[in-house]
Amino acid sequence: MGFVTLDNPEAKPLIRPNWLTWLKRRGRSCLRWPKAQRRAGRDDWIFNGTFHEAVRGVLTMAQLFSIMPVAGILAKDPRKLRFTWTSGRAVYALFCAVGIGFLCTMSVFFFASKRFHFQKMVTAFFYTYNLYAMYRFGRLAQRWPALMARWTQVDESLPVQRDMFERAVLAHRIKLCSILVMTLSLSEHLLSIVAAVHYSNNCPAVHDPYEAFFKSNFAFVYYYFAYSTLRGFLTKFFNVICNFIWSYVDLFVIVLSMGLSHSFRRINAYLFLHKREKMSEQFWGEQRQKYRNVCDLVTTVDDHISGITMLSISNNLFFICVQILNSLNSRPTFVHTVYFWFNLIILIGRTLAVAMFAAEVNDESKRPIEVLRTIPRDGWCLEAKRFAEEVTTDTIALTGLKFFSMTRKLVLNVTGAIITYELVLIQFHKDEASDVDLCKLKRMDTL
Amino acid sequence: MGFVTLDNPEAKPLIRPNWLTWLKRRGRSCLRWPKAQRRAGRDDWIFNGTFHEAVRGVLTMAQLFSIMPVAGILAKDPRKLRFTWTSGRAVYALFCAVGIGFLCTMSVFFFASKRFHFQKMVTAFFYTYNLYAMYRFGRLAQRWPALMARWTQVDESLPVQRDMFERAVLAHRIKLCSILVMTLSLSEHLLSIVAAVHYSNNCPAVHDPYEAFFKSNFAFVYYYFAYSTLRGFLTKFFNVICNFIWSYVDLFVIVLSMGLSHSFRRINAYLFLHKREKMSEQFWGEQRQKYRNVCDLVTTVDDHISGITMLSISNNLFFICVQILNSLNSRPTFVHTVYFWFNLIILIGRTLAVAMFAAEVNDESKRPIEVLRTIPRDGWCLEAKRFAEEVTTDTIALTGLKFFSMTRKLVLNVTGAIITYELVLIQFHKDEASDVDLCKLKRMDTL
Amino acid sequence: MGFVTLDNPEAKPLIRPNWLTWLKRRGRSCLRWPKAQRRAGRDDWIFNGTFHEAVRGVLTMAQLFSIMPVAGILAKDPRKLRFTWTSGRAVYALFCAVGIGFLCTMSVFFFASKRFHFQKMVTAFFYTYNLYAMYRFGRLAQRWPALMARWTQVDESLPVQRDMFERAVLAHRIKLCSILVMTLSLSEHLLSIVAAVHYSNNCPAVHDPYEAFFKSNFAFVYYYFAYSTLRGFLTKFFNVICNFIWSYVDLFVIVLSMGLSHSFRRINAYLFLHKREKMSEQFWGEQRQKYRNVCDLVTTVDDHISGITMLSISNNLFFICVQILNSLNSRPTFVHTVYFWFNLIILIGRTLAVAMFAAEVNDESKRPIEVLRTIPRDGWCLEAKRFAEEVTTDTIALTGLKFFSMTRKLVLNVTGAIITYELVLIQFHKDEASDVDLCKLKRMDTL
Amino acid sequence: MGFVTLDNPEAKPLIRPNWLTWLKRRGRSCLRWPKAQRRAGRDDWIFNGTFHEAVRGVLTMAQLFSIMPVAGILAKDPRKLRFTWTSGRAVYALFCAVGIGFLCTMSVFFFASKRFHFQKMVTAFFYTYNLYAMYRFGRLAQRWPALMARWTQVDESLPVQRDMFERAVLAHRIKLCSILVMTLSLSEHLLSIVAAVHYSNNCPAVHDPYEAFFKSNFAFVYYYFAYSTLRGFLTKFFNVICNFIWSYVDLFVIVLSMGLSHSFRRINAYLFLHKREKMSEQFWGEQRQKYRNVCDLVTTVDDHISGITMLSISNNLFFICVQILNSLNSRPTFVHTVYFWFNLIILIGRTLAVAMFAAEVNDESKRPIEVLRTIPRDGWCLEAKRFAEEVTTDTIALTGLKFFSMTRKLVLNVTGAIITYELVLIQFHKDEASDVDLCKLKRMDTL
Repeated sequence: MGFVTLDNPEAKPLIRPNWLTWLKRRGRSCLRWPKAQRRAGRDDWIFNGTFHEAVRGVLTMAQLFSIMPVAGILAKDPRKLRFTWTSGRAVYALFCAVGIGFLCTMSVFFFASKRFHFQKMVTAFFYTYNLYAMYRFGRLAQRWPALMARWTQVDESLPVQRDMFERAVLAHRIKLCSILVMTLSLSEHLLSIVAAVHYSNNCPAVHDPYEAFFKSNFAFVYYYFAYSTLRGFLTKFFNVICNFIWSYVDLFVIVLSMGLSHSFRRINAYLFLHKREKMSEQFWGEQRQKYRNVCDLVTTVDDHISGITMLSISNNLFFICVQILNSLNSRPTFVHTVYFWFNLIILIGRTLAVAMFAAEVNDESKRPIEVLRTIPRDGWCLEAKRFAEEVTTDTIALTGLKFFSMTRKLVLNVTGAIITYELVLIQFHKDEASDVDLCKLKRMDTL
Repeated sequence: MGFVTLDNPEAKPLIRPNWLTWLKRRGRSCLRWPKAQRRAGRDDWIFNGTFHEAVRGVLTMAQLFSIMPVAGILAKDPRKLRFTWTSGRAVYALFCAVGIGFLCTMSVFFFASKRFHFQKMVTAFFYTYNLYAMYRFGRLAQRWPALMARWTQVDESLPVQRDMFERAVLAHRIKLCSILVMTLSLSEHLLSIVAAVHYSNNCPAVHDPYEAFFKSNFAFVYYYFAYSTLRGFLTKFFNVICNFIWSYVDLFVIVLSMGLSHSFRRINAYLFLHKREKMSEQFWGEQRQKYRNVCDLVTTVDDHISGITMLSISNNLFFICVQILNSLNSRPTFVHTVYFWFNLIILIGRTLAVAMFAAEVNDESKRPIEVLRTIPRDGWCLEAKRFAEEVTTDTIALTGLKFFSMTRKLVLNVTGAIITYELVLIQFHKDEASDVDLCKLKRMDTL
Repeated sequence: MGFVTLDNPEAKPLIRPNWLTWLKRRGRSCLRWPKAQRRAGRDDWIFNGTFHEAVRGVLTMAQLFSIMPVAGILAKDPRKLRFTWTSGRAVYALFCAVGIGFLCTMSVFFFASKRFHFQKMVTAFFYTYNLYAMYRFGRLAQRWPALMARWTQVDESLPVQRDMFERAVLAHRIKLCSILVMTLSLSEHLLSIVAAVHYSNNCPAVHDPYEAFFKSNFAFVYYYFAYSTLRGFLTKFFNVICNFIWSYVDLFVIVLSMGLSHSFRRINAYLFLHKREKMSEQFWGEQRQKYRNVCDLVTTVDDHISGITMLSISNNLFFICVQILNSLNSRPTFVHTVYFWFNLIILIGRTLAVAMFAAEVNDESKRPIEVLRTIPRDGWCLEAKRFAEEVTTDTIALTGLKFFSMTRKLVLNVTGAIITYELVLIQFHKDEASDVDLCKLKRMDTL
Repeated sequence: MGFVTLDNPEAKPLIRPNWLTWLKRRGRSCLRWPKAQRRAGRDDWIFNGTFHEAVRGVLTMAQLFSIMPVAGILAKDPRKLRFTWTSGRAVYALFCAVGIGFLCTMSVFFFASKRFHFQKMVTAFFYTYNLYAMYRFGRLAQRWPALMARWTQVDESLPVQRDMFERAVLAHRIKLCSILVMTLSLSEHLLSIVAAVHYSNNCPAVHDPYEAFFKSNFAFVYYYFAYSTLRGFLTKFFNVICNFIWSYVDLFVIVLSMGLSHSFRRINAYLFLHKREKMSEQFWGEQRQKYRNVCDLVTTVDDHISGITMLSISNNLFFICVQILNSLNSRPTFVHTVYFWFNLIILIGRTLAVAMFAAEVNDESKRPIEVLRTIPRDGWCLEAKRFAEEVTTDTIALTGLKFFSMTRKLVLNVTGAIITYELVLIQFHKDEASDVDLCKLKRMDTL
């Protein structure tokens, strides 16, 4: 018992297969992939409380949209996770990557070759961002089996969860949150299509409604290429995937933060059982090791996903700025107005959700100090002291490329920045409208 | 002797009453409520020095304006505090909440249904804010008896206050502060009425002065509903309550901060008696426990009121920004000018007062270090070390929803932000007026 | 040996004099004041190295300009310092205070009664500020004898200064710095007079050059009162005093900072003699006590002068903002241009000097850690540990009303704020001048 | 074994030479200087792993461009480093300093004597900055031999590097980085010449292409002096040197940061070998001393180069601001556009590189804590505790004149500031172009 040391669970076969066997396997795996999932049995409803188990559903959903192509994701045992380039999921992901790469190239070229236009830059940024996110998830997928093995080890070293309810709570919370985020994103995307259709019908130049819709939305493609209905739906398909990735990046950071803060919460719950009690030095030593294991896990996870966290935060801030900048423009139809505000609220809400859930990891990592501060005089020992020092000194948090920690303070700063930005804009806007009729002017006290 | 452990003082009756007894009780309590207060006897003037006792007056005043509907507020014993939905106070509070809720709905509807107008937004914000503040105070009232029981326990664990003067000082300070804040708010509100009356008389469209006043002030109601004098006075009544709540939120944070910093001051006063002295390890252990009890109390109180603190700060900052934005507009009459500046000064003063009193909790929590640093060499022991570490490491302060701590640094930041904002506005204003006659230009040295 | 405990050195006489003796004394002291200073003997050139001795010259200069009216300032012994309201210095200070109070009232009235004009506000601010500074120095003068007694005690508890040179170095540095600051301020004031004279002569409305000068410079007085040459010179006299006070506030903070950092430097010099050496626990205990004495002195001094520090910093920042705002205006004559830039450079230089010297106190207070970090393994003891903890944990610095510490970081922030402000202005200015002839445009690489 | 104490390796000869021998030596050294370097033998390819050895190439390159005129730079032994004013390198450096001083004087005069023009200010700033950088490098050259001796001592006290590869890695990384930085700077400068030539040919007033080029680029010289081809090339020569210095300042900070973080990395690598192991107290004591030696080295190096670091950061930020300000201007030709963006990207890239490499020193200095946190219960000892305290408490980093530490946080702040600045400009730019044809407007969801 002590610190977790990781035996790499992916023992590679010593004899490398020749290309023929490789081709055979690949063919087989491609064929194997779309087989129907067996009906859920009783076993599937018994939770063992590991994070791998809780996150299965979210990852499966991601694979439908071509990211995180890891095989064996539905197995209960994280050791069955495998990443191969030859699996059907990987091929599907690669196909989507090529499609998005094409959209990305076209939009960047369209932006660069014409004179500067703000909205074109936003479009180019959107596709570039999604392509890069796909790349990061691809890299992460390769290291995901090892990461999950490590996480499961840490999970097993934590205080036991006694009843089934305790074991299921994390999985249920993650499921609930995923459904919420994804439903909102979906409604937002549908609303955007409604607005676009509504609008493209108003431009009477093109008669076919599909053509009008696709041409107006993917001008950077159909400016250079001829239009056909099939091409139209294909571009829309890749566009839908991009929209999914856009939301999924945020959801992924939220889900991982939930998992990490859940681990801390398990330690804290156990510690709070012994508040104000005198415990042995060995007890504190063991608790400190468990705490340290989770801290190390946070660092390891952060090493893997700090790029994705950075993407999530910077991208959201960028689009909030864009939308706030747009907020003063007048909008052509009522549907657009509704869509615009719905979109802005969802954006801000999602950004705050990411920041708050990630900050919870940091909050939970600090809570053991509440117990340590109440250790009575004769129960104070060297290990308790070490524990207290570690908790107060170290900053345990997810980071954005190690540049900033995801803490509650960050939430405040981000909110402050957004409000300031909006305020400045309102003020500029106000200047124009200040010459109101004095007789109708409301006074502040008579609100 | 040791840490305070809380035995819940509200032991609920085991047998739940049926609805008939409930109705009877409610009727009785409604009738009982307006009974005349007995004349103050000698006992009322003898202070026992608890916070509950000191805060009674402020809470009674609040109940006149329909917030914090806790029964037994005038009793000396905090165990007599009760919250029931069936008390007259609760019914009165509910009635006011409905009224304010109506005003809030109307003002939001008026704002949303017309084209964007800054002042309408401010009005809608004002009523929404007050309704939410009522809700928060309602929630707090339910938990107030338990909180006061806890506070009294901590108060009793602190070093004894020897003479009557020491016991009375907190109550007197709170009384003085409340009277000051409330008098200023009242004068400001009266002045606003004078300005509004003065002004509405200048608009000759309406002949009845009351009608002119109410209609111009509550346009968002009388745009949709017919006017009658009774309705006019009723809306004004709810408006007065809103104005009271607006000031009371600030006063409440100030009063609770005073109570908390008073507790720390009692510990500090006792510690300073032993400055530079060599004390036993047991002494430091006991003092540390007392200090820890107060720290825990601060955390508990903060858990209850951090929402109210956030409301107070954010609301004040919002209205300061609004008023500074308005400061460059010309005002129709001299009374308006006086009212405007009086209002702005009171706003800024009240905001700074909230921030400063709350920061005092943090300041006082750090003062034990001055004594601990002067412990002589042979008096230095493990408990003194633990004490010193806790004082220097932990940040004990009220917070705004745990996002920011109320410290002296916050006061500086808030002041800096206000000054910067004003400076930017002055500069924009200056640009217009820079073409002055050079021959009349003052030079800086000849000030 | 141990911590300094202060026996109040000002034992007041038990029998209070009646008003006749009071009048006699006052008359005598008034007469006594202007007696010629005896020629400096050999004793005056032997330094004992206390701060009181080093600061004598600066305080004497201040008294010529009516601030810090403490008697016995030239005595070597700080116990001879006395503050009485009946001394000639106090009467002189009171007289000047009345005069400046009059100017202050007039300028505020002039500003408030007319329509808003930026320069009038600056003038009113200038006199209000100086009056308040006089008040603060008056309050400080009353507590100065006790403070100096305390400081001398601490000085004597520090490691001995061996040779005469070491004892004289602080006095010489203070003298040098005072002369520099005061010469620059004087030249700046003279230049301002030259500019004003030069300018008032250009306005041919008034023929008497004195009248033209005084009337244009003190319009807020002679707008209400008739002009006479005597009155003109009197107003100018008070104006000169104000200009002196304005510079002196900065100089005072610099000088006190020099004294405090010198005390730390004496401790550090002694500690560095024992770098990397193994010393006894007693040694570290004693050094820690000496260090703590100086820290307590810093806190005490800060309690007395934090208001003056705040005045100095806020006032300088205000005037720098004003001057930067003015920097884009065109100036009528070349003398004005020279004066303007000279004034701005002196202002910024003086502000930075105040910030840097005050920050040095903080820098020096942290240097013992360099020695403590190199204590060898077997020399590490409890007192060394306590010392190291105190040095790393506590922030020892002068403050601005306890709101901000005067540290190196503040210098950076202040500089950053000034540069940002100037940059914004330059950018606004640039926008107008951007349409230059392209053929004359310099390219960056050809600088 | 213990802390490094420095025996000054430069023992000066006791008998000072008279001026005749001095002249002789100088003549000889001048003659000696340009002798051909002997062909590299086997010895030159065997690395001993010291920083002096790794940095030789970079310093030699610097000497070609007249900075850091230290003799003996190619010797393997740092004790052979000498600085004399009479060496050929010093004379060459002095000659260049005079030339740049002349350009600097002319550009400042040209800027001051004419009416304010932003680009002239930039030119004057550029030459002043480079002259000052030369001065700082001159001062550093004098103290370089002692610094290198110190560094070599610290290098030798670190854990041994076993194989040749480990010893060569620092030298190779520095070489690679230098080549990259210098190639980019060179291409940027060449591109600038292309742009300038291309442009000066468009102004048909002057027929000689050289004359047109030099006159348009050095207007501040040829406005006052007659032009000749020799003079033209001479000014261009000094201009090239300036451009080199400009890049070299950044490269120098990068290279020294690499050296320092490499030292920390050596310690960390050794410590990580013993992660989770129980080691003796003596072991931790020794490691702590080694760590402390490197920390002291960082402080010493920082004392020498903090001025250069400040120059690098402030200068880069200044030019980034200038370029961003210029970014909205239209550019005359396509070559200018390419050059402009290439220049801006290189500037930002170089600034970030400086900040990131310097921040790495700070990052590496914190890594020992990862090992210290995993020491098992029975291996925890006083020295480990001291080590952990030092690592967590002290901030070990290069600084800008001690005002700010070069940490990862600085990178974030600098990036944030640049983005904000650009955003504000884009927003101002956007306002003008917001009235686009609504029918062509892209909606955000259809990106």
